[in-house]
Amino acid sequence: MKDFQGLMVPTYEDVVAAHARIAPHIHRTPVLTSSFLNELTGAELFFKCENFQKAGAFKVRGASNAVFGLRDDQLERGVATHSSGNHALSLSYAAGRRGIPCTVVMPRTAPQAKKDAVRGYGGVIVECEPSTSSREAVFAEVQARTGADFVHPYNDPRVIAGQGTCSRELMEQVEGLDAVVAPIGGGGMISGTCLTLSSIAPGVEIYAAEPVNADDAARSFRAGHIIADDAPDTVADGLKVPLKELTWHFLRTYATDVLTATEEEIVEAMKLHWKRMKIVIEASCSVPLAVILKNPERFRGKRVGVILTGGNVDLDKLPWMKG
Amino acid sequence: MKDFQGLMVPTYEDVVAAHARIAPHIHRTPVLTSSFLNELTGAELFFKCENFQKAGAFKVRGASNAVFGLRDDQLERGVATHSSGNHALSLSYAAGRRGIPCTVVMPRTAPQAKKDAVRGYGGVIVECEPSTSSREAVFAEVQARTGADFVHPYNDPRVIAGQGTCSRELMEQVEGLDAVVAPIGGGGMISGTCLTLSSIAPGVEIYAAEPVNADDAARSFRAGHIIADDAPDTVADGLKVPLKELTWHFLRTYATDVLTATEEEIVEAMKLHWKRMKIVIEASCSVPLAVILKNPERFRGKRVGVILTGGNVDLDKLPWMKG
Repeated sequence: MKDFQGLMVPTYEDVVAAHARIAPHIHRTPVLTSSFLNELTGAELFFKCENFQKAGAFKVRGASNAVFGLRDDQLERGVATHSSGNHALSLSYAAGRRGIPCTVVMPRTAPQAKKDAVRGYGGVIVECEPSTSSREAVFAEVQARTGADFVHPYNDPRVIAGQGTCSRELMEQVEGLDAVVAPIGGGGMISGTCLTLSSIAPGVEIYAAEPVNADDAARSFRAGHIIADDAPDTVADGLKVPLKELTWHFLRTYATDVLTATEEEIVEAMKLHWKRMKIVIEASCSVPLAVILKNPERFRGKRVGVILTGGNVDLDKLPWMKG
Repeated sequence: MKDFQGLMVPTYEDVVAAHARIAPHIHRTPVLTSSFLNELTGAELFFKCENFQKAGAFKVRGASNAVFGLRDDQLERGVATHSSGNHALSLSYAAGRRGIPCTVVMPRTAPQAKKDAVRGYGGVIVECEPSTSSREAVFAEVQARTGADFVHPYNDPRVIAGQGTCSRELMEQVEGLDAVVAPIGGGGMISGTCLTLSSIAPGVEIYAAEPVNADDAARSFRAGHIIADDAPDTVADGLKVPLKELTWHFLRTYATDVLTATEEEIVEAMKLHWKRMKIVIEASCSVPLAVILKNPERFRGKRVGVILTGGNVDLDKLPWMKG
């Protein structure tokens, strides 16, 4: 950890420490290839399958690093967060493994399947209204009452160091990568990727892939300062959240570019993954393939790592289903 | 190959030869595990993922063995078969790799996606009416005209020897298996499994898993002679075809039992695979998990190999979709 203009920024040493800390609790996920998709894109694609990860998403890396890095005197008060997505599941999973309390503030409108999964891992849900003000008020109350350690879904150096273990594995599993593409929502995975690659493989290009309908990162990257989205709506529902100062730091310092794809292109890419690779992935992690297909000149002839971030999908509500 | 009461029966030496012959053209597919499904079943399950196989199914093993085993003087006339399923794709794929003609007789009512896939691999489709008599007449005409080598989807010693390579890999990948479960339709995969395991691991139990709605194998196994289904209808559409003399020979000689599952149990197991393992598999290959869940006393505490036979699914018509 180092101080950078007042920000506590994780270093590659934190990634290495995180990896040793979380290894017993996560999968070293496989890297898959598809000759069909290679032919289609003209690139050599290497898919890092975090959809096979514990709790179904890469988020368990950062969450586990935070939970297993707690001091003994913090254990009784446990951890807390606000999330309606994979971070909620992941933190509950990690806390369950360590046997400490985990409270998750979730909008009452969150999908029942997500609530069930959090409770299945032993997390306690406190519901709020689906608004930022309600979430913040309820979360403040929870933290005051429990004294729990707040593990932010992405704007937390422990979380970013944990996510950085993913591209560390990828670099061990695949030689000679020219580029890595990962989706960007709040920026935790991209930040971890930037952190690791800038340290151990600084020549590798880093692309963030984002829905046009939630393109705060793309607009921020061009403008040179954070621009927030106004009520983004996209099928890639893991990517609606905004950048924060720590993830913005990594994005603007190390990313090669931010590329965007439309809703239609994202769903098309998602179906291609399912149909050709026979894997279940979320819409969010099909944005990288969508931008690779849309920008062939950037990737043709290159060896490209693609991070498939998660596989927690409601099988009864697939984006190509009618009604 | 050996003569057994007039049947030409493949031997384990044929499996070994097949493996060497087809290795450049197939994937050595991975074996996946799921701690959730282990807990749910009380067994240790090892899933051999032929859904990740070339052309999306194990059938490419047998088809490739037939195609790459042809003598030079047979190449010009090519191969032919009748199938509306994975064998059609697989034979077209293998013939395409060898650069020889492949003709597939398919009912005109077969799904457009399957027809497109066969043509995508370079196969030529000749359509017939969706009846046995039309199929046989059209196929006889095709064979007379082309002189092509007939590669039956399962009742062919070359095909069975090829399918036997799957459990050969499984035994190399997982130590100490107590049982193997595979779905049964015509019986090609079960026959290959019986052939391999009876030779290299005769203590391992072999279970065939079958839909109640197409239970000719279960009824045949109990009766001691082949009983045909009468117009079977099941969501596991790869499993509707009947046993033939060669596959019946292997089933009755080496299988431990044939277990059945209802349509509801099959769809439930299919969703479990998708949801928990994040993989796309066909309804046909979720029958093994369905019968394991239904017969816990048979499998509890055992190390069980499960062959996931294929992943060619119409994503627009999933069995749990309405309408």
